[in-house]
Amino acid sequence: MTDHDHDRPALIALDWGTSSLRGFLMDGAGRILAERSSPHGIQHLPKPGPAGFDAAFTALCGDWLSVGRALPVVAGGMVGSAQGWVEAPYVPCPADARSLADRAAWVESADGTRILIAPGVLHDPADGAPDVMRGEEVQIAGALAENPDWAANACVAMPGTHSKWVRIADGRITGFATHMTGELFAVLKTHSLLGRLMPGPDAPPARAEDEAAAFTAAAFTMGLDAARTSEPGALPHQLFATRTLGLTRRLPPEALSHYLSGLLIGHELTASLAMMRRVWPDRAPPLLLIGDAGLCRRYARALDHFGTPVTAQLGNTAPRGLFQFAAAAGLIAPSTHTDAA
Amino acid sequence: MTDHDHDRPALIALDWGTSSLRGFLMDGAGRILAERSSPHGIQHLPKPGPAGFDAAFTALCGDWLSVGRALPVVAGGMVGSAQGWVEAPYVPCPADARSLADRAAWVESADGTRILIAPGVLHDPADGAPDVMRGEEVQIAGALAENPDWAANACVAMPGTHSKWVRIADGRITGFATHMTGELFAVLKTHSLLGRLMPGPDAPPARAEDEAAAFTAAAFTMGLDAARTSEPGALPHQLFATRTLGLTRRLPPEALSHYLSGLLIGHELTASLAMMRRVWPDRAPPLLLIGDAGLCRRYARALDHFGTPVTAQLGNTAPRGLFQFAAAAGLIAPSTHTDAA
Repeated sequence: MTDHDHDRPALIALDWGTSSLRGFLMDGAGRILAERSSPHGIQHLPKPGPAGFDAAFTALCGDWLSVGRALPVVAGGMVGSAQGWVEAPYVPCPADARSLADRAAWVESADGTRILIAPGVLHDPADGAPDVMRGEEVQIAGALAENPDWAANACVAMPGTHSKWVRIADGRITGFATHMTGELFAVLKTHSLLGRLMPGPDAPPARAEDEAAAFTAAAFTMGLDAARTSEPGALPHQLFATRTLGLTRRLPPEALSHYLSGLLIGHELTASLAMMRRVWPDRAPPLLLIGDAGLCRRYARALDHFGTPVTAQLGNTAPRGLFQFAAAAGLIAPSTHTDAA
Repeated sequence: MTDHDHDRPALIALDWGTSSLRGFLMDGAGRILAERSSPHGIQHLPKPGPAGFDAAFTALCGDWLSVGRALPVVAGGMVGSAQGWVEAPYVPCPADARSLADRAAWVESADGTRILIAPGVLHDPADGAPDVMRGEEVQIAGALAENPDWAANACVAMPGTHSKWVRIADGRITGFATHMTGELFAVLKTHSLLGRLMPGPDAPPARAEDEAAAFTAAAFTMGLDAARTSEPGALPHQLFATRTLGLTRRLPPEALSHYLSGLLIGHELTASLAMMRRVWPDRAPPLLLIGDAGLCRRYARALDHFGTPVTAQLGNTAPRGLFQFAAAAGLIAPSTHTDAA
C-alpha cells in the first residue's frame, strides 16, 4: 500500500437491510471516507418493483458514482433475498468472505452500474431444522478481519429481532442458531394480552427515576432467573406470569415489560450457553457481542448474571465485512488491500 | 325432588366471557330448558360502562325475567373480573363450588334484578409465579358434578387461547398452570414474520384434499417431535424453523401453520406431562379434556403421540357448573337440587 491509496475512493459498500439502507464510500485500505443512510430498506422502497431499488441506490450514491473513475459497488443483507433486487442463494456452512464472493450475484442498475450482491448463509445440521442468516455473515467477516486473534475460535452473539449465535473456527462460520427473541418481545407486547397491563408510551412516570430503574432492573433479573431454572416446554406457561405478576401487584406496571424481556433473553441464553458447553466442552471460547449498543449492554448484563462474561462488544463491523467481501471477489486491487485482508 | 320441579324454570345461568355471552334457563334439577347466546362478551358490549352490561343482560334474558315468579340469576367468567360488571376477587386454591359461593359478589341490574357473580381462582405456589383462572373453575365444578368418579383424583386439560392444566383432589381444584399456547399461535401467525410464508385465508388449495391432509398431519407431528425432544430455553430458536422449513421448501406453505401448532402444543404437553409425573409419581390419574371439540381432538391426537391417552373428552360443562354454584350459594331450594348437587 502507498500513501497514494489513502483517502482516495476505491469502493462503494451498501448494507441494505429490511428497514434501512446504509452506504459507505471507502478507500483502498478499507477506511470509511463518507457514510450515508436512508430509510429505503427493501420493504420501504420509494417505488414498487426493481425500479425502487434503482431509485433508492441512485438517491443515496448518485454523486459517489459520478467521480472520475467508476468505483466497484458491493452490497450485503436482505437486498440479496428472494424479495431483494436479485436473489443470491444461501451458501452452506462452513462459510467465509471467500465462499460469499464465489457465490455472489451481479445486478445492473438502470444507469449501467454493476453491483455485486453477497449471498446469505445456510446451516443445515443433521439433528435439527435448517437455519439461515443474511447480513450477519458480512458483519462477521468484518469482525474477524478487525480482530484476527478471534478468527481461529470464537462464539459470536448478535442480539436483535432475530438474534444469531454463531460458531467460528478457522476463520469460517461453522454453524449458528437464530432465536426470535426480539420479535417475540415486540409481538407479545404489542399484540397479546401481556401488553394490556403495561403503561403506554405516553404514560407519565409513576415514580422517581432511580426508584423506577431499581424496579425494572429487579424485574429483568426475575425474568432471567425464571428462564435459567426452567424445564423443557416451560415458556408458554412462564409468559403468563407477565400478566399474573401485574394482576397480583407483585410487579408495578412499568416493570412488566422488563420481566418479559428478561424471560425471553433468559431463554435464549439458557439454550445458547448449553450449546457452548456442548461445542466447547473443555474451554469456553472468546464470546463476542455485535449489535445495537444498548441491546448489547442488556445482553452483557444478562450474560454476567448467568456467570458467563463477554470477551468484547464490537461496533458496526458491516463496512469492514463488505470490504473483505469486495477484496475476496477481486474488486479491490490486491496491492491496495494486502494489510487489510 | 318431585315431578313438579321438572321443566319449571328455577334458575338463569350466564356464562359471560370476553367475547361472548351465553344464557341458560334451567329447571330445579339442573336441566337446560332454553339456551341463548349473544356476541356481547365483556369486550363487545352494546354500550360503554355499566349500562352496557345492563343492556346485554336485558337483551338476552328480558323475557326469562318476566315470568310469574322472580328467578335467581348467577353468572361466571370475565364478568367478575376487574374489567367486568363487578369485581369478584380471586379465591385461593384449594377451591370448589362452595368456596366460589362463599366469596361471590352481588350486582343489581337497572331493573332491580340481583345477580350473583362467581369469583375466579388464584394458585400461588411457593416455587413459582402466581396463576389465575376465571370461568374454568365453573366448568370444572360442572365436570366433577357430572362425573363424580373423577372428583377424588384427576387432571383436567382445557385447551384454548390460554390453556389450563388443572389438578383435582377431593373434589377441589388444588393447583393449575396456564399456557399461552393459543394466543402465541395467533399472534405469531398474524403479526410475526412466521405468517409471511403461510397462505392467506383466500388462497386456492395447492393440492388435492387428502394429500393436503397428509402433509398437514405430518407437519403437526414434526412440530410435536421437535418440542418433545427440546432442551430448556429452546422455543425462541425452534420457532424460527417455521420460516426456514418453508424457505428451504421442506414443508409446503399450507403445512407451516400446522408445524407451528404442533411445536407450541408440544411445548405445552412436554411441560404438563412432566408436571403430571411429578404430582402423580406412582400412577397417572384420569386425564380429562374440556373445551372446543375440534381443538380437543387435536390435543387428544398430540397426547396419544406422546404416549398419554385421554380418559374422556367432555362437552360444555359450564351450565352444570353454574347450577352447582347457585346450589352452593343457596339460590336453589335444597329440596329441588338434592340429587344434582
